[in-house]
Amino acid sequence: MNPSPSSEALKDFPAVATIPVQWGDQDLFKHVNNAVYFRWFESSRVEYWHKSGLYEALKGPGYGPILASVTCNYKKQIKFPDTVLIGTKVEKLGISSVTLSHDVFSTTNNAVSATGKSVIVMFDYQSQHPVPITEDLRDIFETFEC
Amino acid sequence: MNPSPSSEALKDFPAVATIPVQWGDQDLFKHVNNAVYFRWFESSRVEYWHKSGLYEALKGPGYGPILASVTCNYKKQIKFPDTVLIGTKVEKLGISSVTLSHDVFSTTNNAVSATGKSVIVMFDYQSQHPVPITEDLRDIFETFEC
Amino acid sequence: MNPSPSSEALKDFPAVATIPVQWGDQDLFKHVNNAVYFRWFESSRVEYWHKSGLYEALKGPGYGPILASVTCNYKKQIKFPDTVLIGTKVEKLGISSVTLSHDVFSTTNNAVSATGKSVIVMFDYQSQHPVPITEDLRDIFETFEC
Amino acid sequence: MNPSPSSEALKDFPAVATIPVQWGDQDLFKHVNNAVYFRWFESSRVEYWHKSGLYEALKGPGYGPILASVTCNYKKQIKFPDTVLIGTKVEKLGISSVTLSHDVFSTTNNAVSATGKSVIVMFDYQSQHPVPITEDLRDIFETFEC
Repeated sequence: MNPSPSSEALKDFPAVATIPVQWGDQDLFKHVNNAVYFRWFESSRVEYWHKSGLYEALKGPGYGPILASVTCNYKKQIKFPDTVLIGTKVEKLGISSVTLSHDVFSTTNNAVSATGKSVIVMFDYQSQHPVPITEDLRDIFETFEC
Repeated sequence: MNPSPSSEALKDFPAVATIPVQWGDQDLFKHVNNAVYFRWFESSRVEYWHKSGLYEALKGPGYGPILASVTCNYKKQIKFPDTVLIGTKVEKLGISSVTLSHDVFSTTNNAVSATGKSVIVMFDYQSQHPVPITEDLRDIFETFEC
Repeated sequence: MNPSPSSEALKDFPAVATIPVQWGDQDLFKHVNNAVYFRWFESSRVEYWHKSGLYEALKGPGYGPILASVTCNYKKQIKFPDTVLIGTKVEKLGISSVTLSHDVFSTTNNAVSATGKSVIVMFDYQSQHPVPITEDLRDIFETFEC
Repeated sequence: MNPSPSSEALKDFPAVATIPVQWGDQDLFKHVNNAVYFRWFESSRVEYWHKSGLYEALKGPGYGPILASVTCNYKKQIKFPDTVLIGTKVEKLGISSVTLSHDVFSTTNNAVSATGKSVIVMFDYQSQHPVPITEDLRDIFETFEC
């Protein structure tokens, strides 16, 4: 069986969330409202967290990931009805932060129709400061990305 | 193949929308927020409209359906992750209004976890008054419900 | 100073939330989407809870209020820009449930443009059953409603 | 009367939207969810558009502004209850695009708690291509920013 266009387009993304566009995601311009893409990015990050094992690994300690910034680049309108696939992969693993990149594949457009970036910082809730990403966590990221 | 629990539970509903719960649908009580169910009902009504042919039939004339009221009864919490199926069927076809009933089946709960009702009024946008549901539209409803 | 139309219209409501309509609250019919009203009802219930003292009174014990059902009746379209005032008052104080009624006053329409009802049940999270509303809580409701 | 901290913090922003945080804007981390900030940016852009006269000026022709990208930088958590003020100003007026910058001032934090950037492209809907920003529009931007 040939791979689907979506699986081809998102083949470098270890985590992919699949979400139907809802009628109410549209704004009065009759396309998906710009804020909805950030709900999708969040869903895809959560997919990454759960599927990679990071969610479990981060359950214990008093620190965790916080979102420092997020960007969306809108390439092509997404309309109802459609089903979108949102991929998440690591772009850069820093000392205490990780930059994730996202592609939004529209089934109807048959094309990546938006891209994005999220910067996540590992944060100690008690000291209220960033903390270095441990070797254990790095291993999880690296294993999952392969 | 045996029918799935969801198809059994929603077998009386001619239109069913299938939607994954997103992480961001949760509120701070760690279950899906009450307002999200109304987005789901809307998606299921739209599914009904499109699948039945009502959407096409209502494209021409200067009148259309407006939502007069909607209710949700919460039976059981719905949590992330989950996939919900929302069924819509006609409960009562009146002179100028139609009462739709909705069931929300949670895959994780393996049970109908909320029910709802929407009252739709056929409305003339020019005169700003309700209008009787035509025989043509009644036929579409009745054919689709069988 | 004469009372404003809104304060007159909502004078029976001990708790009123004031919220500007946001552009993104509109759907493609160019009016506020039906699901947004439930966010407003929620904000008004929270206003009631905080202002009455119920929020403080319910902090300790292992039980709390859960939403059993909610209804919205749409009377008149609400459009952007506008500011809405959403009132909440007790309609009926039952054994273990309280029925709240809501009015949504639109400043632009200069009229109550939607009404609603929420049924809240006092719930014991451990036994997973409804519990009677205590005399202390009844006093808070009754004092606040006067 | 001394200027308020918010009017001081946002004094360089010709358009400011003022929005109360709603209870339902919180996610399960008990702070405002990351996607909500993009609804706020949108409200502030719309405020800019209406107040500056751009909205009126763009009503006629077959082209208009589209959002090409948007970013949010989260500086400090915003919690319920709070009222936020979201400022919008021009950072750079290009050939066919304008970069807007946003500050989100939290009344409770008494500090700018998030910043953002939106890139808007002037777009011809018929040719589906960007078009240069006309002198008339440049004048509106420049007058409004003074």
